[in-house]
Amino acid sequence: MNGFPVSMKALVEEFSKMPGIGPKTAQRLAFYILKSSKNDAESMARAIIKVKESVRSCSVCNNLSDNDICDICKSASRDKSLLCIVEEPDDVVTIEKAGSFNGLYHVLLGSLSPLDGIGPGELKIKELVGRLDTEKFKEIIIATDFNTEGEATALYLSRILKNFGAAITRMAYGIPVGGGLEHADQATIAKAFEGRREAK
Amino acid sequence: MNGFPVSMKALVEEFSKMPGIGPKTAQRLAFYILKSSKNDAESMARAIIKVKESVRSCSVCNNLSDNDICDICKSASRDKSLLCIVEEPDDVVTIEKAGSFNGLYHVLLGSLSPLDGIGPGELKIKELVGRLDTEKFKEIIIATDFNTEGEATALYLSRILKNFGAAITRMAYGIPVGGGLEHADQATIAKAFEGRREAK
Repeated sequence: MNGFPVSMKALVEEFSKMPGIGPKTAQRLAFYILKSSKNDAESMARAIIKVKESVRSCSVCNNLSDNDICDICKSASRDKSLLCIVEEPDDVVTIEKAGSFNGLYHVLLGSLSPLDGIGPGELKIKELVGRLDTEKFKEIIIATDFNTEGEATALYLSRILKNFGAAITRMAYGIPVGGGLEHADQATIAKAFEGRREAK
Repeated sequence: MNGFPVSMKALVEEFSKMPGIGPKTAQRLAFYILKSSKNDAESMARAIIKVKESVRSCSVCNNLSDNDICDICKSASRDKSLLCIVEEPDDVVTIEKAGSFNGLYHVLLGSLSPLDGIGPGELKIKELVGRLDTEKFKEIIIATDFNTEGEATALYLSRILKNFGAAITRMAYGIPVGGGLEHADQATIAKAFEGRREAK
């Protein structure tokens, strides 16, 4: 017994499981739910369930999607001669927000990390090479993170992709060294796209 | 279109509504839900609904409760000669965690704030006085916040409570001036209980 009803304790515990949410924040969020309208609480609960039910990987680019093929792959207005390779779905969101890229994406779902047992076979690289057989790109931009794993992945990709007839580029070092894409501001992302250079 | 499926966007929006949760944190939490198991997501959704369905105010002390009367009011092991008056249900939680008080509570559900139109009639003061007719306390500890509204409430209460035969005390100034109870650490809370003084 700590002064909370059982159901509040349960909700505080659920919120505490989330990354970066400590017990005090969890308590604050639980009070927010308690004070919000029944409709608002139900709407949040539904949104949580809905994400688990409907979000899957796009069968072409592995980005998150409510359908078999994501909105970007399906779109008629995207430049199909440009491909941007990223590590994770949230990198797509970050780049889309910057608004400086209008091509297609390929999400690797990770980066090479031999120490964690993540080799090329664990990433969506076979699927990437498969796409290059049917889709013809003028330029492939490698936008993996600018940390050790991301750079290693970029190096590996630039080698296996160089014989497919596309220019292979890497986003410019506008992004702080060692930083993840998801922390970059939109202007930096845009600069990094402008200053992209041929991969060595 | 910003690279997110509709259902993810909806969830990020829901999380962004919560206090202290900005768009990047909301996105991080939404990814956590996406990556968690279906069971875990459902369990969180259920906890949210459950809180709205089952939590109400204790009909005696106004603390949060899953039942008509809360666990503390019902408990046989609490000292029924001590009453602690607090502003909000989360103050009960804070004090219970410190473990230095074993009496009963009365939650005012706010503090006097004339500028916001909150006078004695808006707080559970009539209910407090009603309790004093049937419950006999040796000591009533006023544990409202140590800010302007809390002090004004304490002063008001000490005046209307002084003729009920109980010693009226105020928690000691161990808690930083101007601070809310919910930010105090447990040791400070305990010290403040020890050093409580008679209300002037």
